[in-house]
Amino acid sequence: MPNAARRSERSRRAILNAALDLVEEVGYAKTSVEAIAARAGVGKQTIYRWWPSKGAVLLDALLIPSEGDHGVEPLPDTGDLAADLKVVLRATVAELENPRYDAPMRALATEILHDPALHDAWRERIDGPLTRIREERLRSAQAAGELPGDLDLSLAIDLVWGPFFHRWLQGSGPLSDAYADAVVDAALAGLR
Amino acid sequence: MPNAARRSERSRRAILNAALDLVEEVGYAKTSVEAIAARAGVGKQTIYRWWPSKGAVLLDALLIPSEGDHGVEPLPDTGDLAADLKVVLRATVAELENPRYDAPMRALATEILHDPALHDAWRERIDGPLTRIREERLRSAQAAGELPGDLDLSLAIDLVWGPFFHRWLQGSGPLSDAYADAVVDAALAGLR
Repeated sequence: MPNAARRSERSRRAILNAALDLVEEVGYAKTSVEAIAARAGVGKQTIYRWWPSKGAVLLDALLIPSEGDHGVEPLPDTGDLAADLKVVLRATVAELENPRYDAPMRALATEILHDPALHDAWRERIDGPLTRIREERLRSAQAAGELPGDLDLSLAIDLVWGPFFHRWLQGSGPLSDAYADAVVDAALAGLR
Repeated sequence: MPNAARRSERSRRAILNAALDLVEEVGYAKTSVEAIAARAGVGKQTIYRWWPSKGAVLLDALLIPSEGDHGVEPLPDTGDLAADLKVVLRATVAELENPRYDAPMRALATEILHDPALHDAWRERIDGPLTRIREERLRSAQAAGELPGDLDLSLAIDLVWGPFFHRWLQGSGPLSDAYADAVVDAALAGLR
């Protein structure tokens, strides 16, 4: 990598980490592009050259863990759908217990509703890939006879992930491993 | 009602309707307290005397339809839980097809995540009452033997309303009567 590219990459990483730091420390509403720039040690114009908004910075920051991979990993497929989905939802519980990810994910979930360009980016880079790997796992369960062949996969996804999302975003109760397991059991019983 | 109170009530209504108009026309992000005041023909200070933020104005505006009633109406209880829940979810579909309610409800659902005082008000005046009438209907179904007596009511509420909320907020698919019916059938099959 030439020096200029390496410097760019270093700035990019500093900006993404500064955005995560600030959202964790002062909240999304009080995080400004100016503050991100100051913390990352770059000029505000550097940020605006690469991203249209602070929401767009955050979206990239949330994708740091999957950089270097070839996109989103498929869901586990051991042949036991309930067990696999419990692993997935429990992993989400663990992730959301970490304020470094909970606060920005919450901010992004709401910001996309007010920003159509960010919504498109989220659809393309986060929601779309997640939907594809979920459908893939459900189709494999259909092929294995674990779910009806004529099941509406979009309804199935809402039924497994919707209750969890509802509780998370509305704060109507605690997210726990036991809750993740109960949702999976009830949703799958309803879908079979 | 004395004249001054009548004038106050007239201003209050004008402010709430102006807020709904503006959110429908220009979106929540571009709706300012100044613009609400101008459209309602009152001074900005009048709004700040009664409400701490534009989100708080919107919350009151969304409660206009239930004013004059004694709070939130109970859910229908014909003795057939599935049929009653379908009526309820279909009514929500109809409500959300109306941009006058969809846009402010969407704004409120996200604004509460950034504003703890508004979150408390929403919990007390909207979410709390809704949760109570939902639990009440589910308890009646338990008493009638339609649901297990040891069912976790909070999980049951997430399972019936969560998929719908997920699809609505993420825009992952159309809301329709057929979808409402399918969610109720699958959720209840899973809870039984």
